[in-house]
Amino acid sequence: MKKELKVWEKVGEPTVLAGKYGSKLISQNFKNPKTGKEEEYVLYTKKDWSTVLPVTSDGKVVSILQYKQGCNQITRELPGGTGEFDNEPPADVMRRELKEETGYEAGSVIDLGPGQYPMTRETLRQMHPFLALDCKKVAEQAVDETEEIEVEIISLQEWIKLCHTKVIEPGAIVTTFRALPYLKKHFSLDLNSLFSV
Amino acid sequence: MKKELKVWEKVGEPTVLAGKYGSKLISQNFKNPKTGKEEEYVLYTKKDWSTVLPVTSDGKVVSILQYKQGCNQITRELPGGTGEFDNEPPADVMRRELKEETGYEAGSVIDLGPGQYPMTRETLRQMHPFLALDCKKVAEQAVDETEEIEVEIISLQEWIKLCHTKVIEPGAIVTTFRALPYLKKHFSLDLNSLFSV
Repeated sequence: MKKELKVWEKVGEPTVLAGKYGSKLISQNFKNPKTGKEEEYVLYTKKDWSTVLPVTSDGKVVSILQYKQGCNQITRELPGGTGEFDNEPPADVMRRELKEETGYEAGSVIDLGPGQYPMTRETLRQMHPFLALDCKKVAEQAVDETEEIEVEIISLQEWIKLCHTKVIEPGAIVTTFRALPYLKKHFSLDLNSLFSV
Repeated sequence: MKKELKVWEKVGEPTVLAGKYGSKLISQNFKNPKTGKEEEYVLYTKKDWSTVLPVTSDGKVVSILQYKQGCNQITRELPGGTGEFDNEPPADVMRRELKEETGYEAGSVIDLGPGQYPMTRETLRQMHPFLALDCKKVAEQAVDETEEIEVEIISLQEWIKLCHTKVIEPGAIVTTFRALPYLKKHFSLDLNSLFSV
């Protein structure tokens, strides 16, 4: 690095501006090392979440469709969800959510970290990406009776195409990107033919 | 679809729980079509932002390093930033931020939409991804004197490797994923050799 970039120092404790159902807007002061002055930043947080690309032994993706309130539409995503308590191991969250949302269990799991901050300026919350290979259906979907999730088993080719054209959930695309070297090796995929315009 | 997934109806107006410097935590009621009951959701919003993968004519990526307050570390990202007003065209935001942060201008631009909701359940805010080809340096960096951004010009190979190992900003990875078919064509890239474990 030519410039000497520095990590800013947090000054004092954060203040909760508002918080409800696990979502919080907080204020935190930082000392800007360039000016020496304090600056206030407003940050969002909620418990971390996990996302998983579940693939069956014959190379099919277990995708889900679900209404999401933020984007206000039915979106195609990957299974996953939020931790039930602080510091719940991300792989445990992933296995629970995968089973509840789809009825599938993972054969082997690859941690595709490092975790992602959905907005690096504004969020303290992380998303943890995983690849689950040799997934098998072992149970029925077991979501809350007020939830409605549709499982759709599609080819890897179709999933990657959807990531280029329809998917609006960055966690799903990051997870897929990070999984590409493993998928290529495991299924002898030709990435040049998968990524075409 | 086997299940009849429905878009939930918003009930009443949103209430701002807290808002400061453009970030807002709001409450919105929705009618759950499965139960017919009203449920309250807490959502985060701020103006949309744009991200750009800027590539020079010889296939180098114009990446940046910057301290970000949310993740509390110096992160490697792509240029981009937030709109200055509601509904500012995302391509305009992208061109302005690219020039301010790096001094580069785009030759040709490809819109890599659809835009992404960083958290589809919790955010109303979108990120708009772009690819900028044939980028040229036309000016000096022109960031606010309190900001510090380091520009680093690296090979596409190195950038893609960083996306697998170090990058924690999903917008940068989504933009790169969406750009792959165009990069492959433009630079005759072999994706099979770029994505290896």
